[in-house]
Amino acid sequence: MQNVATEFDTIAAISTPPGEGGISIIRISGSKAIDAASKLYRGKDLRKVAGNTINYGHVYDPDSDEEVDEVMVSVMRAPRTYTKENIIEINCHGGIVATNRILQLILGLGVRLAKPGEFTERAFLNGRIDLSQAEAVMDLIRAKTDQSMKVALNQLDGNLSHLIANLRQDILDVLAQVEVNIDYPEYDDVETMTTKLLKEKAVEVKSEVQQLLKTAKQGKVLRDGLATAIVGHPNVGKSSILNLLLHEDKAIVTDVAGTTRDVIEEYVNVQGVPLKLVDTAGIHETNDKVEKIGVERSQKALEVADLVILVLDSSVELRDEDRKLLKQTSGMKRIVVLNKSDLTSKIDQNELQSYVDSTEIVHSSAVNPLGTKDLEERIAKLFFAGSIENSGNNIMVTNARHIGLLKQSEEALNSVLSGIEMGMPVDLLQIDMTRAWDLLGEITGDSYQDELLDQLFSQFCLGK
Amino acid sequence: MQNVATEFDTIAAISTPPGEGGISIIRISGSKAIDAASKLYRGKDLRKVAGNTINYGHVYDPDSDEEVDEVMVSVMRAPRTYTKENIIEINCHGGIVATNRILQLILGLGVRLAKPGEFTERAFLNGRIDLSQAEAVMDLIRAKTDQSMKVALNQLDGNLSHLIANLRQDILDVLAQVEVNIDYPEYDDVETMTTKLLKEKAVEVKSEVQQLLKTAKQGKVLRDGLATAIVGHPNVGKSSILNLLLHEDKAIVTDVAGTTRDVIEEYVNVQGVPLKLVDTAGIHETNDKVEKIGVERSQKALEVADLVILVLDSSVELRDEDRKLLKQTSGMKRIVVLNKSDLTSKIDQNELQSYVDSTEIVHSSAVNPLGTKDLEERIAKLFFAGSIENSGNNIMVTNARHIGLLKQSEEALNSVLSGIEMGMPVDLLQIDMTRAWDLLGEITGDSYQDELLDQLFSQFCLGK
Repeated sequence: MQNVATEFDTIAAISTPPGEGGISIIRISGSKAIDAASKLYRGKDLRKVAGNTINYGHVYDPDSDEEVDEVMVSVMRAPRTYTKENIIEINCHGGIVATNRILQLILGLGVRLAKPGEFTERAFLNGRIDLSQAEAVMDLIRAKTDQSMKVALNQLDGNLSHLIANLRQDILDVLAQVEVNIDYPEYDDVETMTTKLLKEKAVEVKSEVQQLLKTAKQGKVLRDGLATAIVGHPNVGKSSILNLLLHEDKAIVTDVAGTTRDVIEEYVNVQGVPLKLVDTAGIHETNDKVEKIGVERSQKALEVADLVILVLDSSVELRDEDRKLLKQTSGMKRIVVLNKSDLTSKIDQNELQSYVDSTEIVHSSAVNPLGTKDLEERIAKLFFAGSIENSGNNIMVTNARHIGLLKQSEEALNSVLSGIEMGMPVDLLQIDMTRAWDLLGEITGDSYQDELLDQLFSQFCLGK
Repeated sequence: MQNVATEFDTIAAISTPPGEGGISIIRISGSKAIDAASKLYRGKDLRKVAGNTINYGHVYDPDSDEEVDEVMVSVMRAPRTYTKENIIEINCHGGIVATNRILQLILGLGVRLAKPGEFTERAFLNGRIDLSQAEAVMDLIRAKTDQSMKVALNQLDGNLSHLIANLRQDILDVLAQVEVNIDYPEYDDVETMTTKLLKEKAVEVKSEVQQLLKTAKQGKVLRDGLATAIVGHPNVGKSSILNLLLHEDKAIVTDVAGTTRDVIEEYVNVQGVPLKLVDTAGIHETNDKVEKIGVERSQKALEVADLVILVLDSSVELRDEDRKLLKQTSGMKRIVVLNKSDLTSKIDQNELQSYVDSTEIVHSSAVNPLGTKDLEERIAKLFFAGSIENSGNNIMVTNARHIGLLKQSEEALNSVLSGIEMGMPVDLLQIDMTRAWDLLGEITGDSYQDELLDQLFSQFCLGK
């Protein structure tokens, strides 16, 4: 007889960041994890040790009988583990060669190399966490500030999941009631009663969905960072603004996974908001560079920016380039820094005011330079009006996928409500109501497509 | 009454490499480790759990009562731990912010941030390992090939230590015997006998020291890599040689600790020998670059190279630059690649032979390109004559510090022997013999200066 329960193969990966460090961890998950580790390990019999214990010993190459490293092996038995499967974690001395060698030996024992995020995917598929919690795991790892970490942790703890589950239960309850009413029409006004029920619930759920969506704008910034471009003519003082933001080692430099040498992203923590600096290389351009390059760079940076810091030299007249940047950034969230404002201003104030609102302007000079605090407060004010909103219980929606699904379910609920207005039959209303239920279910992964899982977990780091 | 035993303060550090990964570890060592962790951790009472167990729970900020991360906490009790002290390892979700936050919370509890290598330094100071074993820990982490890993592991296992300890014991025995002979001169020929004893032992120990030193050259290459410079006139095919060495993702790129963005070292594994490529940036120079820059680059690379791969274009006559490089690299370990050798050779063979031995030359062409295997075998042959020597038990000396001390102790033993030849009095011979004993002791750290420890462990990575 075959076991019909979900049975996955055993997987392994290096779970610590690549590079030299004190400890590296090779993680194995699946029914064969403990057996595979036993074949390489000399120490206690891992098949017999208690769960959740750490065991000192050595890893040997079973073919050559050569020692590979001195290790500590953690044994965690299903189902109370990260993946709900048996998990082995081999803590070795670190370094690239020994760690890879141990992984290779494990892969030689019929264990498969885990895909990025596959341990967390197992945790989801085996029902330990839902999809929004799985997504929070990666958000937590990528969090750039305490504030964004807190939001991810709240989501990992299942607070968003519970809220969504409750909304879905409410919808399910009313849909069940509607079925009962239709099947047993004991009263004459069954149609009216049913419609009333649907309307009440649609209004109620829609209000909760809207409450969640209110947090989305800030939530997304907390999760993904605020793309910030510092633009302006060469030599107006852009680097000093950059240095202001980077003061006291506040920059968090993050390597984009796997591409250490290619793309490096720089984040600055501004009162809990992660600022993602766009094209900081361009900021250091000097006078000898062709002006055209500077302009092209500014244009590219502006395309992706959420926040623009436009620096002007107030000791010279406005240039065409300045005018172009002023026009182009109008309507964007921006801060216009008038630099060298201790010198006599050569900028036509009337013209400037035609482009910029006075609340957008800050002054800076050698004698009275713009302070870090001033700049940070301006930025925080622009985006959070001083405080971070949340829809009770500190729940925020941060993830573009969730935001999209919430908007779609809001639309479905609107269809229910407008359908009622137009006197549509109950079975059509049921369809829209069910659609709202389905869409909310996609957030927590109660319904999903395999492609979604592939796409979602492929953004994880290896070994998670 | 005060405890007179060595008592260190409690230290903590992040033990995994910096960056995004599935798991990060914060390690705490010292008598307060378990207490400190208990103050942040909610789950089982860590003070009461058994040693070598893993405990699931959450870290909270004790001041704000805010949750910081979901964690697994390993509790390891003194003395059977890495440092012989109580050790706590907090495995958290990884990522920069949460990991640093937990470390900060621990440091707020009277725990000090560990210096680089301080956990291993404790292992040494608390007598779990000796100094050469401590050094092997870092060699293991930095190992670039299986071969270099194996040598480090052998040293970590204490095989070098035991050999040195035995040599020192032999010296100590003979010194004790000499004292006895001097104190109880029961025979008339005591002077002769004592001298004979000293001579025998000095010869014996010297032979063992020399045996070890024989492995030093290869050992040093295995540990530090073979600095390899590929030089030649622009456009002769240097990049194709580079690509040959880098084939099949064999390059191991190592970030120099802490300076991700500054220096990146590239290593290639050639039959177990790590080749450290010197100035690979210079190899990609194109024709439009001023030739002078190319020449300067070659000069710099040659200064630090252990191995030179000099590439010549055989379809053109020798240039002055070629001649200069040929002269300059004479006497160095080198391979001269005659590229484009399918075309009619324009190089004056007599002149070439005046610079190069025919065994140094390999031919390469578009129709019959130099193969990876050919090149690798050439390199292995140049440095290892086909095999890696070792002084029995796979012991190799790899570390410049050890090599220096072995050479000094060899000199001290030579002084004993020449002193005997010259008929020096026994008390003077004793001094030199004792010096050999002391010098060997510095390898294992039986005698050391604090400055040595500081200098040695400061080269470790953080958290080890």
